[in-house]
Amino acid sequence: MKFATEYLWFDTKGKREYINVTGKVRDIVRASGVSEGMVLVSAMHITAGVYVNDAEDGLIQDIDEWLEKIAPFDRNYRHHRTGETNGDAHLKSLLVHHEVIVPITKGELDLGPWQQVYYAEFDGRRRKRVIVKVMGE
Amino acid sequence: MKFATEYLWFDTKGKREYINVTGKVRDIVRASGVSEGMVLVSAMHITAGVYVNDAEDGLIQDIDEWLEKIAPFDRNYRHHRTGETNGDAHLKSLLVHHEVIVPITKGELDLGPWQQVYYAEFDGRRRKRVIVKVMGE
Amino acid sequence: MKFATEYLWFDTKGKREYINVTGKVRDIVRASGVSEGMVLVSAMHITAGVYVNDAEDGLIQDIDEWLEKIAPFDRNYRHHRTGETNGDAHLKSLLVHHEVIVPITKGELDLGPWQQVYYAEFDGRRRKRVIVKVMGE
Repeated sequence: MKFATEYLWFDTKGKREYINVTGKVRDIVRASGVSEGMVLVSAMHITAGVYVNDAEDGLIQDIDEWLEKIAPFDRNYRHHRTGETNGDAHLKSLLVHHEVIVPITKGELDLGPWQQVYYAEFDGRRRKRVIVKVMGE
Repeated sequence: MKFATEYLWFDTKGKREYINVTGKVRDIVRASGVSEGMVLVSAMHITAGVYVNDAEDGLIQDIDEWLEKIAPFDRNYRHHRTGETNGDAHLKSLLVHHEVIVPITKGELDLGPWQQVYYAEFDGRRRKRVIVKVMGE
Repeated sequence: MKFATEYLWFDTKGKREYINVTGKVRDIVRASGVSEGMVLVSAMHITAGVYVNDAEDGLIQDIDEWLEKIAPFDRNYRHHRTGETNGDAHLKSLLVHHEVIVPITKGELDLGPWQQVYYAEFDGRRRKRVIVKVMGE
């Protein structure tokens, strides 16, 4: 049984950003030598997410507006009594979910033709990371 | 270590449909000979989802109405500038999530009494598929 | 390859409760002897969820209010024709998702500094359970 564990670091310029990490995940899988298995891609923060969807800029803006609509920035979250101002980022993270599992078949990510793995930053401008863990043989 | 990889194909008559795939997943797990492990059930498209919940027709209608309420069809998504009209289906997919992992114990899906695995089609009337990947021993 | 399977039982006093299960999951992982792998934490019910986020009481109240806002209690769900009154709990479960996978590295949960695993009860006051399944070597 083989394992590989890598950490991807991010330090976004914007508060919210959507970063395609498919190529990096693919490289880690290929380097692992795993032919059959699964790779976990999981944000290690509670104000970020990881999801699989389309690499289309218009859609990414739609996603961002939609998230802001149903999990909006608001001064009045109880969480802000701790001194934080990122209550909305926690809710956006819950909505999008913080991790995905991608299957590996014949040494490659077994994704559909349009599926791309995205890191979604909801409270950026600080160093944050994602774990990529490959498991298989 | 054992692996089994199968693809389930769908070509729904409706735009949106909810299809119980528990029996098919169970058959794949049994055929795999895996006694302990996990099975990934993951849509290979960005306008479909996979979730675990109840096989109750009223609830399925409630889920469909609720999804349409918070991720509605709308002519004005930016994504539609590409010629697509399925922006809402991408958002519904994000909300429901595109994959689940089901544990396997003693050769069977280790689900609660009411848990069923559903394929949720949000942009149907075309051939689409789900990967079912079993991993264990 | 090693596996460990445990079930955590809950019988909450409240209708909705959020219970930090990180310590219990950690204990199960340590007892399993798995050094590299993954642990699945998955609700076995369709009116409960499992998520990873912050152990901050204000935030937990924010999450609860937010879930009630976008997936509210309502007398008129079709699901209630079966005699149930918990349609909202099914929708909340879909939104939060019913399971997470946590990576295991060097025998420990490989979580970020603020990440905690929560059981989210949306229809409590009855005995319910979560499966914790460790897989690795």
